[in-house]
Amino acid sequence: MDQHQAAPVDAETRARRQAFYDKIAPRSLAPLWEVLRGLVPPEPKPKMAAHLWRWAEVRACMAEAGALLTAEEAERRVLVLENPAFPGQSRATGTLYAGVQMVLPGEVAPAHRHTQSALRFVLEGDGAYTNVNGERTRMRPGDFVTTPSWAWHDHVNETDGPMLWLDVLDVPIVAFLEGAFSEHHNADRQSVSRPEGDALARWGSGLLPIDAKSPYGLTSPIFNYPYDRTREALLALAKAGPADPHWGHTLRYANPIDGGWAMPTMAPWMTHLPAGFTTAPVRSTDGIIVTAIEGTGSFEVGGRRTAFGPKDVFVMPNWTWRTLTADSDCTLFMVSDRVVQEKLGLWRDERRAA
Amino acid sequence: MDQHQAAPVDAETRARRQAFYDKIAPRSLAPLWEVLRGLVPPEPKPKMAAHLWRWAEVRACMAEAGALLTAEEAERRVLVLENPAFPGQSRATGTLYAGVQMVLPGEVAPAHRHTQSALRFVLEGDGAYTNVNGERTRMRPGDFVTTPSWAWHDHVNETDGPMLWLDVLDVPIVAFLEGAFSEHHNADRQSVSRPEGDALARWGSGLLPIDAKSPYGLTSPIFNYPYDRTREALLALAKAGPADPHWGHTLRYANPIDGGWAMPTMAPWMTHLPAGFTTAPVRSTDGIIVTAIEGTGSFEVGGRRTAFGPKDVFVMPNWTWRTLTADSDCTLFMVSDRVVQEKLGLWRDERRAA
Amino acid sequence: MDQHQAAPVDAETRARRQAFYDKIAPRSLAPLWEVLRGLVPPEPKPKMAAHLWRWAEVRACMAEAGALLTAEEAERRVLVLENPAFPGQSRATGTLYAGVQMVLPGEVAPAHRHTQSALRFVLEGDGAYTNVNGERTRMRPGDFVTTPSWAWHDHVNETDGPMLWLDVLDVPIVAFLEGAFSEHHNADRQSVSRPEGDALARWGSGLLPIDAKSPYGLTSPIFNYPYDRTREALLALAKAGPADPHWGHTLRYANPIDGGWAMPTMAPWMTHLPAGFTTAPVRSTDGIIVTAIEGTGSFEVGGRRTAFGPKDVFVMPNWTWRTLTADSDCTLFMVSDRVVQEKLGLWRDERRAA
Amino acid sequence: MDQHQAAPVDAETRARRQAFYDKIAPRSLAPLWEVLRGLVPPEPKPKMAAHLWRWAEVRACMAEAGALLTAEEAERRVLVLENPAFPGQSRATGTLYAGVQMVLPGEVAPAHRHTQSALRFVLEGDGAYTNVNGERTRMRPGDFVTTPSWAWHDHVNETDGPMLWLDVLDVPIVAFLEGAFSEHHNADRQSVSRPEGDALARWGSGLLPIDAKSPYGLTSPIFNYPYDRTREALLALAKAGPADPHWGHTLRYANPIDGGWAMPTMAPWMTHLPAGFTTAPVRSTDGIIVTAIEGTGSFEVGGRRTAFGPKDVFVMPNWTWRTLTADSDCTLFMVSDRVVQEKLGLWRDERRAA
Repeated sequence: MDQHQAAPVDAETRARRQAFYDKIAPRSLAPLWEVLRGLVPPEPKPKMAAHLWRWAEVRACMAEAGALLTAEEAERRVLVLENPAFPGQSRATGTLYAGVQMVLPGEVAPAHRHTQSALRFVLEGDGAYTNVNGERTRMRPGDFVTTPSWAWHDHVNETDGPMLWLDVLDVPIVAFLEGAFSEHHNADRQSVSRPEGDALARWGSGLLPIDAKSPYGLTSPIFNYPYDRTREALLALAKAGPADPHWGHTLRYANPIDGGWAMPTMAPWMTHLPAGFTTAPVRSTDGIIVTAIEGTGSFEVGGRRTAFGPKDVFVMPNWTWRTLTADSDCTLFMVSDRVVQEKLGLWRDERRAA
Repeated sequence: MDQHQAAPVDAETRARRQAFYDKIAPRSLAPLWEVLRGLVPPEPKPKMAAHLWRWAEVRACMAEAGALLTAEEAERRVLVLENPAFPGQSRATGTLYAGVQMVLPGEVAPAHRHTQSALRFVLEGDGAYTNVNGERTRMRPGDFVTTPSWAWHDHVNETDGPMLWLDVLDVPIVAFLEGAFSEHHNADRQSVSRPEGDALARWGSGLLPIDAKSPYGLTSPIFNYPYDRTREALLALAKAGPADPHWGHTLRYANPIDGGWAMPTMAPWMTHLPAGFTTAPVRSTDGIIVTAIEGTGSFEVGGRRTAFGPKDVFVMPNWTWRTLTADSDCTLFMVSDRVVQEKLGLWRDERRAA
Repeated sequence: MDQHQAAPVDAETRARRQAFYDKIAPRSLAPLWEVLRGLVPPEPKPKMAAHLWRWAEVRACMAEAGALLTAEEAERRVLVLENPAFPGQSRATGTLYAGVQMVLPGEVAPAHRHTQSALRFVLEGDGAYTNVNGERTRMRPGDFVTTPSWAWHDHVNETDGPMLWLDVLDVPIVAFLEGAFSEHHNADRQSVSRPEGDALARWGSGLLPIDAKSPYGLTSPIFNYPYDRTREALLALAKAGPADPHWGHTLRYANPIDGGWAMPTMAPWMTHLPAGFTTAPVRSTDGIIVTAIEGTGSFEVGGRRTAFGPKDVFVMPNWTWRTLTADSDCTLFMVSDRVVQEKLGLWRDERRAA
Repeated sequence: MDQHQAAPVDAETRARRQAFYDKIAPRSLAPLWEVLRGLVPPEPKPKMAAHLWRWAEVRACMAEAGALLTAEEAERRVLVLENPAFPGQSRATGTLYAGVQMVLPGEVAPAHRHTQSALRFVLEGDGAYTNVNGERTRMRPGDFVTTPSWAWHDHVNETDGPMLWLDVLDVPIVAFLEGAFSEHHNADRQSVSRPEGDALARWGSGLLPIDAKSPYGLTSPIFNYPYDRTREALLALAKAGPADPHWGHTLRYANPIDGGWAMPTMAPWMTHLPAGFTTAPVRSTDGIIVTAIEGTGSFEVGGRRTAFGPKDVFVMPNWTWRTLTADSDCTLFMVSDRVVQEKLGLWRDERRAA
């Protein structure tokens, strides 16, 4: 932008201009030329920070929270993962909210709905369930469960152990667009009208109803993508040939109705990295939330390497060179706002040789 | 159309007109008004006949054919199911070809490709395989296997028993449009470059490659939809609620990339009918090929009822009232040209109360 | 296909096989291997012939037809352009019907509708109108007017002179798919409920209704694309740069709702060729109907050159090398079934250097 | 949300919780239950204010700005329309930037490009031009001109009078998503490689290139929608029947390639209201920028009515009941982020009877 460095102006000119600015300000007018450079910068300067939340630490805090109040009291017993760059803003990346939720045996996180889309990636426990619009789904580690915009949902734990998962929501996006609506259900637990597994059978078996219309608008009608299937698919890829140097073995969760991303505002995918593999440097305009359902390794961002283990959650900033290294075979869940950026024509990435 | 019944014309007028027709005919001109009614009829008069091929009979003839010539000699050892209304025309319905193919132990149906799309619905045998563009898939009864337009394919039986399946191709459609191209491979058996199951893992697990582009143009990249999955999905539907009065429990094979039909010229679907169920009358503009992978029952078309059992193949004509009755739990594979008619804005159906 | 030339079989084998064929024929079964080569040929052998109908001749015959019967008597007073290869079949190409229609001053071609789609390309006269679903449109030479599937339509000539146009319909396609339905209106002239030009304003000005849904299913809601606009667009292209060697300056009529072809079964386009321009050889799987609204030139097909002048109609066969030469500046209307072939994944072309 | 009003907690509990919050804060963890209500509110509380900028005032300030610095000096001589609710934030609504730009005779606003999309709605002057990716377009009042994301553009005034227009950009959206990139051209004026009007001919005449691919990604390839056409279309609608009670006679600027909105991040439309017409109350989740190219009237928002005249610019807040009254025949340009909200499944509106 150097060539348009405005010529330095003398004090008088500066004063004359300032007088003009002062005059127009009360008229809700302002000079673009004083702010243009800031509004149309040459390239992104990421605002979010890289960060990793150790599972052991999160888990311990969560245990304490469990003793502090019930799920019903909390409505949702969640520890928000706050990006260090945005304290108090309930954001894990610039555009996504993340938290870890716990439902203890016998607890119910009561039914409500909101226009924000939510996804759950299950980290611990086996068999508590989420009810979504009249269908329940049991959750197991590695399962990817969606709560579509405006769908009633409640979480119930009738097992013997605590159930914990990663929550990611598009709260900051909906807040920015001022599109938030919410309602409480008149009962804590909605009634179940379809047998478990119905959605997966109907929409997730390679077949579709003759007239395929999602009951959930732009969100995939499959609301639980079980890990056993996902894992099997990734291992098949790994068997089929070498990993992509930048992306490893990667599949995205898809909406069977149109082949797009599973959710309209959040782009979730899974990556398998074989032990010893390091991805070549990539940077992209989306900031990414990651959790390892299996494996240990490290990520390097901005020249700083951080180790991760199972269930740790970490974030890699937008437009910052990043690499991932697998010490053991890793299966990583990732999610970003890439789908939003793609729909608006804004997503970009850049790749370097390994 | 009565109101436009042309007034009767006198002999002289008729003669004068005929003289005119005779004069313009050598100029490749003809009077529309003499043929308009035929070109633009009030409603379809179906040309195809209803028909059922008993499996026992087809199987016996096939056994004889097996002794008459090898698969290599035949290129494809297939008995064409000829609709009685179209003898010698290799058509099962007005627009689709069907046949039953057999590959004996040790045989190879050599590699070729053609612009015609083919589908296989497996009826007997276990484990012979089809190779499609570098990937093999083992076939089991009830599997739905596609051969996309212009994809190399060969069939190999290395098992101990004969392998038989129903072939359906869009041969009449491609012939009508004069779009047929074909080539022989320089080897009988193409080389295999991907592990078995790769396509199903990559495209058929609810996930998709980040950049989802079918390697097969408009055809689904899943080229084997295994029956165990399909069956499980249909039974889940049956468990979830009552069957649709006209369609029973029905799912169509879908293309995960766009949610459309699995193939661009043929619309395949599966229907489960519980024992004792009779569908309410429907007629639609597509003629339908059916085979029961499980169950016994009957279909009624034009007031005539015909019983069917496992592996029998039957055809139900276009624009003719039809019902299906299940004596035992039935799982029916069906295919028609509905996808073509939908794309062209021509598909219609009509339904009556039960 | 040579390598799979079946080995010659001895007389005994031949007899044994024939006996088998005779036995299975009554069971509606036939041996594929005896017909496979014909069903799956190596490449198309075009069935249609190249042909040109001189306007002077068509016009003269039409004048005679005008004296033979009224438009009301004829329902549609049309001389069918019969491809010499298909006498008596009302086909101009393998898949499209074409005719020249005349409505004399004071006449009405009465209202009816049918599932066949129709297009009119106006050749002579000025100001007679077509009514389509409650809106009338005045026709001028070069206008492209659609009659969408199942839309009521009638033609009325309240001018002083005869009105003539080229009709193209998908009659053979709809016949092949057995999707023909038709009805007569209870009045010869439907009532008009919208002002003239409404559709063009609403859909054809670069803007669209907020919720853009075609009132005509898969057909463009613009039902008259006036020639003055089309011509201006083509001349702008010609001004902008050199013509494409194979296609000249070409634009296709588009559906503003989805950017696809204007009609679901017929692909219409316009080509401008500057005087002296010859297109490089192309062949494509669609047979093409052409008329020159302006200009003189020639087309060469299969080594044979034929001259054309204004309003002559000619057809160029599928999968046959073709070139077009403009003696003066030419504006050519063309239409084929390319849209059908594209939707089914069958359209191909091949191009040679000039 | 009353039913989930958390029970009041005693001082000790409160203290215990606070101790926990203090402990986890350094670990970048925070309790969701303390902020949930704010993150998932029952319905939007609009942040932006309704406001009107009088043209006379803006014009006078602009005249002063013209004397203060040249267009080259300013890069863009624009007075930002700052929503009173967001002083210093360069936003007219919650998500859109707006400004009024002036280019004086002989001036050039130098060539640059950015990922932000821009639109211009011309208010005063006749014939200065904008160059977009090698094509120039002359601007006249009422023209709607786009600058697609990442397209080179410069503005040149070779006429005798000043040229002024309304600029609207998606700057806040791109800033929120951190997708801003920009570059300066190495020359102030890019070279012109296509004749004027080429894009409109090629894409805006109801026809399209055979292979229709936008040179501008998700933005319409028509980059000037001239007012004479738009006006004619709106008047045709007004002639055809009564206005929609809530929307008047409204058409949206469309992308001819897919029928969607003309731009991926901003939804522009035009409304004609006949003299005396008042729209029935509507509220929608998008805040709207409006300018009257013709006519006088008033808008009422939140019970407060404000008069407007030609070229005044005003904003109507999101999720706030609004009506528009036309004193004389009005033609109103409007733009909001509706397209973004629709793509993300968030757009809603509500309508009341008049």
